[in-house]
Amino acid sequence: MDDLSDLTLEEKASLTSGADFWRTKAVDRAGIPSVMLTDGPHGLRKQAGDTDHLGLAASVPATCFPPAVGLGASWDVDVAERVGEALGVESAIEDVAVLLGPGINIKRSPLCGRNFEYFSEDPIVSGVMASALVRGIQSQGVGASLKHFAANNQETDRLRVSSDVDPRPLREIYLRGFERVVRDAQPWTVMCSYNRVNGVYTSEDPWLLTTVLRDEWGFEGLVVSDWGAVNNRVAGVAAGLDLEMPSSGGRTDAQVVDAVRNGSLTEDALDRVARRVVNLVRKAQARPAASGPLDVDAHHALAREVAGRCLVLLKNDDDLLPLARDARIAVIGEFARTPRYQGAGSSQINPTRLDNALDAIRAEASTDVVFAPGFTLDGSGDTDALRADAVAAASDCDVAVVFLGVPADEESEGFDRKHMELPADQLRLIDAVAAANRNTVVVLSNGGAVTLPFAGSVAAVLEGWLLGQAGGSATADVLFGTVNPSGKLTETIPLRLEDTPSFGNFPGEHGHVRYGEGLLVGYRWYDDARTDVAFAFGHGLSYTRFEYGDVSATVGADGDIVVTVPVTNIGSVAGREVVQVYTSLPSSTVQRPPRELKGFAVVSLEPGETAEAIVVVRRDEMAYWDVRIDRWVVERGSYSIEVGASSRDIRATTSLELEGDDVVLPLSLESSFEEVLAHPVAGPMLTEALASRPGGVPPELVQLLGNFPVGRLDGFPLPRRDMEVLIDDASSRKEHRG
Amino acid sequence: MDDLSDLTLEEKASLTSGADFWRTKAVDRAGIPSVMLTDGPHGLRKQAGDTDHLGLAASVPATCFPPAVGLGASWDVDVAERVGEALGVESAIEDVAVLLGPGINIKRSPLCGRNFEYFSEDPIVSGVMASALVRGIQSQGVGASLKHFAANNQETDRLRVSSDVDPRPLREIYLRGFERVVRDAQPWTVMCSYNRVNGVYTSEDPWLLTTVLRDEWGFEGLVVSDWGAVNNRVAGVAAGLDLEMPSSGGRTDAQVVDAVRNGSLTEDALDRVARRVVNLVRKAQARPAASGPLDVDAHHALAREVAGRCLVLLKNDDDLLPLARDARIAVIGEFARTPRYQGAGSSQINPTRLDNALDAIRAEASTDVVFAPGFTLDGSGDTDALRADAVAAASDCDVAVVFLGVPADEESEGFDRKHMELPADQLRLIDAVAAANRNTVVVLSNGGAVTLPFAGSVAAVLEGWLLGQAGGSATADVLFGTVNPSGKLTETIPLRLEDTPSFGNFPGEHGHVRYGEGLLVGYRWYDDARTDVAFAFGHGLSYTRFEYGDVSATVGADGDIVVTVPVTNIGSVAGREVVQVYTSLPSSTVQRPPRELKGFAVVSLEPGETAEAIVVVRRDEMAYWDVRIDRWVVERGSYSIEVGASSRDIRATTSLELEGDDVVLPLSLESSFEEVLAHPVAGPMLTEALASRPGGVPPELVQLLGNFPVGRLDGFPLPRRDMEVLIDDASSRKEHRG
Repeated sequence: MDDLSDLTLEEKASLTSGADFWRTKAVDRAGIPSVMLTDGPHGLRKQAGDTDHLGLAASVPATCFPPAVGLGASWDVDVAERVGEALGVESAIEDVAVLLGPGINIKRSPLCGRNFEYFSEDPIVSGVMASALVRGIQSQGVGASLKHFAANNQETDRLRVSSDVDPRPLREIYLRGFERVVRDAQPWTVMCSYNRVNGVYTSEDPWLLTTVLRDEWGFEGLVVSDWGAVNNRVAGVAAGLDLEMPSSGGRTDAQVVDAVRNGSLTEDALDRVARRVVNLVRKAQARPAASGPLDVDAHHALAREVAGRCLVLLKNDDDLLPLARDARIAVIGEFARTPRYQGAGSSQINPTRLDNALDAIRAEASTDVVFAPGFTLDGSGDTDALRADAVAAASDCDVAVVFLGVPADEESEGFDRKHMELPADQLRLIDAVAAANRNTVVVLSNGGAVTLPFAGSVAAVLEGWLLGQAGGSATADVLFGTVNPSGKLTETIPLRLEDTPSFGNFPGEHGHVRYGEGLLVGYRWYDDARTDVAFAFGHGLSYTRFEYGDVSATVGADGDIVVTVPVTNIGSVAGREVVQVYTSLPSSTVQRPPRELKGFAVVSLEPGETAEAIVVVRRDEMAYWDVRIDRWVVERGSYSIEVGASSRDIRATTSLELEGDDVVLPLSLESSFEEVLAHPVAGPMLTEALASRPGGVPPELVQLLGNFPVGRLDGFPLPRRDMEVLIDDASSRKEHRG
Repeated sequence: MDDLSDLTLEEKASLTSGADFWRTKAVDRAGIPSVMLTDGPHGLRKQAGDTDHLGLAASVPATCFPPAVGLGASWDVDVAERVGEALGVESAIEDVAVLLGPGINIKRSPLCGRNFEYFSEDPIVSGVMASALVRGIQSQGVGASLKHFAANNQETDRLRVSSDVDPRPLREIYLRGFERVVRDAQPWTVMCSYNRVNGVYTSEDPWLLTTVLRDEWGFEGLVVSDWGAVNNRVAGVAAGLDLEMPSSGGRTDAQVVDAVRNGSLTEDALDRVARRVVNLVRKAQARPAASGPLDVDAHHALAREVAGRCLVLLKNDDDLLPLARDARIAVIGEFARTPRYQGAGSSQINPTRLDNALDAIRAEASTDVVFAPGFTLDGSGDTDALRADAVAAASDCDVAVVFLGVPADEESEGFDRKHMELPADQLRLIDAVAAANRNTVVVLSNGGAVTLPFAGSVAAVLEGWLLGQAGGSATADVLFGTVNPSGKLTETIPLRLEDTPSFGNFPGEHGHVRYGEGLLVGYRWYDDARTDVAFAFGHGLSYTRFEYGDVSATVGADGDIVVTVPVTNIGSVAGREVVQVYTSLPSSTVQRPPRELKGFAVVSLEPGETAEAIVVVRRDEMAYWDVRIDRWVVERGSYSIEVGASSRDIRATTSLELEGDDVVLPLSLESSFEEVLAHPVAGPMLTEALASRPGGVPPELVQLLGNFPVGRLDGFPLPRRDMEVLIDDASSRKEHRG
């Protein structure tokens, strides 16, 4: 760690904000160079030439891998790590110190305009996949930036809105993924978000940036602001926001200097953040030299392989897919020719290449492939004629493959969607095509979930999300069975927007959004409310079938839970299965969703092959956040362990007894009559004391007044002084263990 | 107003808490007697003989009128006022100064154990009905006590739980009814609730008890604690809690004296609350002498008339009801013989008489009526045999009238229900009876809404809620058509508990309950989420039919809205129709439910008669609570005015342009780019300034960065200093009016 003693106050303050849009400030005199941070996360977005003041100018070509919405659906840790390595390699070649990603905010609503940059509605999937990506990036001596910390789950009013979220959902849903990545992968940097959390800007929240992130989780790196997230720079320094980006033109540096001079900020606080900036620079300087120029072909091939892992086969009636190469195929939909492969905003990559599905299908098919655009991306043109051509094409062929999707201008960083529907002309098109040819396959390109009113009337649906620059060829790989699809949904596809858990509470107004659904995010809500969905969290089909055997669960020496289940490929082609482990605690004393994902594993099986899927569920993941004592608590009890091919396709169930944490919940005069009665020591004492009184304790009285604190009504259930003595006596005998 | 100067500090402090369970303390030396407050609200519960320390001993007989759950369903202001008068008369006879009611908490969940004491899921119905009741009670020189103030919508952990509710729902839903009653009827007292609101005990919340209640609403009376609600008495005095009940045995009086002595409480604060106690005593002393003993017959007759107004005819296929007097009738269900007519807890009345439906039906029928109990209230007995007897009776008769309900021990003050279902033996019974006789009528007795899985398989359903001591005869009146039913639902009957708006957020845990559904309470939720319900808010059939003409709406000189619609009785019997007016503002800039009840009127019509229903909607009711400026705001715009026979049976619609309130929303550097662009003065200035810059303002930039505050990114959209000048300039030219 550098000694900062040779830096002036002004020099230290200068380190706490950027030199321009992308670079830290150098202090040449002290041998501290400037380093570059630049956008990701599914590719490198390094601005070409001089940076403009908004960082929006053209960027150097880079491989566009599947955005998180696609990558997450692979549930493939190895693939994510390899993508991370590739990103690290490309960053190193471009002399980029930190790649600004991954983003792991929870998909609280399908409407969030930036969902394509996030992994899941579930924190475990998000945390595990992002950890792998961080490991991969950082294996190349390049830093990752875990973002957007925290509770940044919408774009509407994103720079001011307060995410008003209660402690349990904040801890168990919105922070849990961040905690996982910080503990497992130690990203070099964490990026604070734009929004406020419960009224406090994350960029100046000491609880979030220091107490939770560093003291509780052990984060050792640097916190950088999202670009423009700084509200009060001095408060940010005190809270632990190390680096403000982009440049403030020196304005906030001067504020920091003034604050130290006038005593409102300690120099120690400034030293801490300045030191972390220097540490980041030193880590960047230690990066090995890039081994050579970008191997465009190799990275494109990787992008194709990865994209093939991301496609989710939602339905496949009568095994219509894979397509026979000699089938007469009508490819319909402009997206087949003009792919939608990434989202808009800061993550937009200038790809080295761009495959489209139409060319790829034509390359793999052995007969002529008919194409009809069906619609235009901007809604222009004669939609009736376009549709008629498409129907004619579909009628003439064995199978119609229809590429539908959300137009690029409907989903982007910066704003949220207002609805979940595909454009009306696309819906009319698919209805017409499905009526003309029952062998209709829909391929979707969309960053956020859309409603699928046509799902019941087409034979197959392939959810492609956004697949990066090689998505077109990967889609063809899956359509023809070159790749057996193995992606699974990391977010529920609901039937209606009104069914979504944040409905009525998204996106808020007047500077506040209430996370009113609490813990019941995503499948946790649909399962608890027993709401029908279009396709469940975790769902995804294969061209083969898997059979699950009996599950066993044991507690290991370290307290972690080892779940083992044999899985057999009972079909005729090799395949990959994502085995999911969900748990619950039916006897819980606190609210619990019916099932929560706690771990997953992938098995790759040849036809007829059986393998044990082994999922290690960390004991810590079984805990809930107890607001009474501000800590995680594992409850004692018999946990249900469910192993599923999806959250609604549970294949094997067992239960497992866990020892609980010792929790001391002292009694007081604020304890209720019922609580004292239920207390292992005080209860019998109170019952005895009451039995000696005329009438005893009739059950109606417990029902009516059981929730009264024992010190509240004079003489109920005992005279106040007697009650005090009883509680003191009971407390001295034995602490209550919950 | 009494001069308190002749009272000692100790005497003043003594006035701030009760003498025993029911009475205030006297200061004989100063001529201040003790007065009695006692439970209501649907009858007088005055303890007989000496009071016990919990106030639960037997009470003197009194007329048990329909509890609020029933009375509310009448939507009948006149009837409510007459009930109030009768309650006042009975209180005066018993020398009771204050009757502890009405309760107007919102039915946030059907599970709240005390819903039977409350009117509605809607604040307008609650406020209007409760105002009438207060007027009636107080017309007799007896005080009412409006309770439980505020946001006390559950029994679980009711003495400690914090109702965590955002400002808009708090103002627009949970406080709105209280505000209406305080402004319209000036109850002598308001009773604070047990719970906390957003972390603060209502018994010590100066914002609630003084700022809102007195300063904003003009409350002139006394605030009494719910019995045992005092947490910190000194804080309560400072906050405006005038009277602690019951007695604290002198403990808290001494605390108050100490606090004044040590300066932590001002004597002025103590004087304020002591003076209000004295004022209450003086008002009670001014009560005219009771005119004579209780006229039991007259009040019982009133109870019967009122109960007849409360029954809600939910369905009536093929006009099965009213019953012919010579029909062969099987009466089934123990509730016909042993009525469920009120709830348990502090409101439980010792009735002067008790009618049961079986006797009443027998009295009105011209043939022998068969009876089979069908089930027992405690679940004992041979349920199969009981059911078989009932089926046999039903099979033998023309019609089966089945009395189902929630057993008394399942709903009470003190605890909440865990589910919405009728007991399993009753559900089996009704399935069997309905299968045996298609002419099956169900009569329900229940304090909280229950699911009605059998609704589709029976011909008629009569929702009786709880009807008081004459409910049995009133039910017979309706069954035979002596009374034409005219009640309407004041709460939605949902299909499933999971559909209810507070599902997942009720009843909270660990001292907190999150009102996560926000504004979307009751029908506001079902309508916004387009959720099917069993029976909609406002629904209720008649033995006749009503036709609605065209609606007109105009703004009166006082700004209030006068809605007029002709209603015609197109059937063959006289009837009453509750005409409901709902509004919304489709162009609203804030969240608005699709429709909100804003007023209602009742028309009584002979066959063929037409009358104008006139509903005055107060302009104030059109306002939303603006959290940015902490005040009510009426938005300018074209409001939809819907007139309905229920919330889902809208018969006539119009729209009405309203002038908005002047709202000053100043611009600043925290205003977003979009907000400045949309500003009538600053917008054109900014556009002009940007047009002169290279590239202008591309729409993609507005989409991506439109939500950035204009002072956040240096140089975006203008240099910070230029932006400051522009905003100052625009602000000086014209204030923005929203």
